[in-house]
Amino acid sequence: MSAFPDRTTRAEIELGGTFQPKFGPDGLIPCITQDHATGEVLMFAFMNAESLTHTLRSGQATYWSRSRQKLWKKGEESGNVQLVRELRTDCDQDVVLIKVEQAGAANASCHNGYKSCFYRRLTALDDPAYALETNAKPLFDPKDVYKR
Amino acid sequence: MSAFPDRTTRAEIELGGTFQPKFGPDGLIPCITQDHATGEVLMFAFMNAESLTHTLRSGQATYWSRSRQKLWKKGEESGNVQLVRELRTDCDQDVVLIKVEQAGAANASCHNGYKSCFYRRLTALDDPAYALETNAKPLFDPKDVYKR
Repeated sequence: MSAFPDRTTRAEIELGGTFQPKFGPDGLIPCITQDHATGEVLMFAFMNAESLTHTLRSGQATYWSRSRQKLWKKGEESGNVQLVRELRTDCDQDVVLIKVEQAGAANASCHNGYKSCFYRRLTALDDPAYALETNAKPLFDPKDVYKR
Repeated sequence: MSAFPDRTTRAEIELGGTFQPKFGPDGLIPCITQDHATGEVLMFAFMNAESLTHTLRSGQATYWSRSRQKLWKKGEESGNVQLVRELRTDCDQDVVLIKVEQAGAANASCHNGYKSCFYRRLTALDDPAYALETNAKPLFDPKDVYKR
């Protein structure tokens, strides 16, 4: 059972003043994580009711790892925790957006060493080769991660 | 069949220079849409290969509507189109992020009249009542939408 308020009417969900998050059939809600100071999107992951509750109570971003099927306290292993400054939801309350202060040793959100997971962009929308480029610099050497 | 390059090795997908988007078992990839000038997250939706291709070729954000099960050319009915300035993907290339210029009559992304769908935030992370608040002002009267 979810610890969150039950979903009520469409009007209440879309324009009301109570958080009524919708978890999908798999028990998950998508979460967008944004740097609270710069607005940069850092990562995208999923939360279940337990990880959302943990995020709110601890003030630290906690996700649900679909690959490992376990609670994923961000930074628990790497030390790169995310301190939650604000939580938003969208019109139909089936997505959450958290604004965080990325903290820790490297201030990196991505396991590949970058501040943001979105470190690559298409060189051009109409590029038939679909080439990606990056102008981001890694903040730590990801080999250190793979070594552990 | 997807028009996009095949997924190759983990190293190529995560650190390489070719866009190899991963569509889920349902054929969809999550898309975060951000204002290219301010960084504000405007909305979250899904794309299938057809809508992603249409987005890249037309330069206008095109999603897949799960509720209507059809291609959703953003702004086709409301006039509030999104001109795509940049497309990014994340480390494992199973999410896309587009930076857009929200254009059109009201410059609103949300059907409820707001610039962003994320117009409400929790008043406090530890609020046991889970109260939401907003400081956003609608740019058009959503009743106009419901009337149509």
